[in-house]
Amino acid sequence: MAYAEQTKTHSSAASHTPESLTTGETSTHGYVDDKSALLTRLRRAEGQVRGIQRMIEDDEYCIDILTQVSATTKALETVALALLDDHLKHCVAQATRQGGEVADQKLDEASRAIARLVRS
Amino acid sequence: MAYAEQTKTHSSAASHTPESLTTGETSTHGYVDDKSALLTRLRRAEGQVRGIQRMIEDDEYCIDILTQVSATTKALETVALALLDDHLKHCVAQATRQGGEVADQKLDEASRAIARLVRS
Amino acid sequence: MAYAEQTKTHSSAASHTPESLTTGETSTHGYVDDKSALLTRLRRAEGQVRGIQRMIEDDEYCIDILTQVSATTKALETVALALLDDHLKHCVAQATRQGGEVADQKLDEASRAIARLVRS
Amino acid sequence: MAYAEQTKTHSSAASHTPESLTTGETSTHGYVDDKSALLTRLRRAEGQVRGIQRMIEDDEYCIDILTQVSATTKALETVALALLDDHLKHCVAQATRQGGEVADQKLDEASRAIARLVRS
Repeated sequence: MAYAEQTKTHSSAASHTPESLTTGETSTHGYVDDKSALLTRLRRAEGQVRGIQRMIEDDEYCIDILTQVSATTKALETVALALLDDHLKHCVAQATRQGGEVADQKLDEASRAIARLVRS
Repeated sequence: MAYAEQTKTHSSAASHTPESLTTGETSTHGYVDDKSALLTRLRRAEGQVRGIQRMIEDDEYCIDILTQVSATTKALETVALALLDDHLKHCVAQATRQGGEVADQKLDEASRAIARLVRS
Repeated sequence: MAYAEQTKTHSSAASHTPESLTTGETSTHGYVDDKSALLTRLRRAEGQVRGIQRMIEDDEYCIDILTQVSATTKALETVALALLDDHLKHCVAQATRQGGEVADQKLDEASRAIARLVRS
Repeated sequence: MAYAEQTKTHSSAASHTPESLTTGETSTHGYVDDKSALLTRLRRAEGQVRGIQRMIEDDEYCIDILTQVSATTKALETVALALLDDHLKHCVAQATRQGGEVADQKLDEASRAIARLVRS
C-alpha cells in the first residue's frame, strides 16, 4: 500500500534506541523497540480510515462500510494493547523497581489508561 | 451477498445529491444526508491516526499516545453508530415495509453488523 | 444446574402479555420466542457472578478472576445481542410497517440502545 | 477510592488467606484490601442479573431490559478494572521488584488479561 519509504527515519531512529532503557530515568520509551511495527500498523489504519471516506463518497453499502469501521477500530485496539504492553514492561516496571511516589503515580496512570481503553 | 445491483442508481448518485432521499422507495443510502458530516469526522479521525504516528516517531510518552488512540477509537465508534442509525432508518425500514425475504435478510445483516460493533 | 421449573410462569406468561403493545400481527415482545434460551443463559451468567464472589472470598488468583469476569461480560453481551436482534425483527419491524411517528420513535430508541451497548 | 473500613471482615479473611502465594514481602493478593467493596459490587451485579431474568419472565419491554444489561456489563467492567488495578499495584509490582523470569511472566499475563478485557 505504498507506505514505502516512511521507514527511512527509522534507520536514524536506531541511533536513539533504548540502549539506556533500564538505567535510571531513561530517556526513551519502551515502545521504541516496536516502533516500526507500530508505525506500519498505524499507516495501515490511516489507509483504512481513508478507505472509509472513499466508500462514503462513492455511496457504498452501509454494512460494508461498517465492516470496514469495525476492522479499523480493531486495528487501533491492537496498537493500543501493544503500546500498553510495552509501557508496562518498560516504564512501569522500571518505576516499580525504583519504588516510591513515582512508582505509585505510574501505576495509577496505567490503570486509568486501561480504564479508558476498556471503556472506549 | 447478492446486493448486486444496488449500485446502479449510485452511478447517478455519483453526481451526488440526495434529492431523492425521502421520496418513497429511494435509491440512495440513508447516510447520504449526513455524508458531509461523516466525511468531516472521518477526516478528523484520519488526522488523529496521523497524529499518533507522529507521536510515536517523536518518542512521546506512551500514556499520551494511548489517550489519543482511545479518542480516535471513540471517534470511529461515533461514525459507526451514525451509519448504523441511518441504515436502520432508511435501508432496513424500507426493506421491512416491503417485507418478504429481503426484509429478513436486511434485519439479519444489521444484527450481525451490530454484533461486530459491540465486540470490536 | 437445577434451574428446572422456572418455566412454569411461562405458560401463564401468555396471560400477562402486553396485548397492547401495538395492534399489529403479534401481541408479545419478540424475545418471547427465545425466552427460555435467554433465561438459561442469564441463570448461567448469574452463576458466573456468584462464582466470581466465591473466588474473591477464597482469595483466588486475580488473573483467574479476571478471566471469569471477561467470560461473564461476554455472556451478557450475547444476551443483549439476542434481545436486540429480536427487538429489531419484531417490535421495530412491526412499527416500521405501520409507519408514522411510532416507527420513528422505535428506530431512535433502538439506535440509542445500540449506542449504549457499543459503549458499555 | 476510599473503601474505608472494609477491612473489618478481613481479620476473619486472614484465616483463609493464601500464605503461600509468593514468598515476597506480602502473602495476600492485592485485592484483599478491597474485598468487601468488590463483593458488595458483585452482589449488586448478581441482583441485576436476577432482575433481568425477572424482566424477561414478566415480558417487560426489550429496550428496558437492554438498558439493564448495559448497566450490569458496566458494573462488571468496574469490578474488573478494580481487580486489575490491585493486581498491578500488588502482585505485578512485587514481581517486578524481584525481577527475573517471574516478573516477565506476570507482566505478560497482565497484558493478556487486559487484552481480554478490552476485547470483551
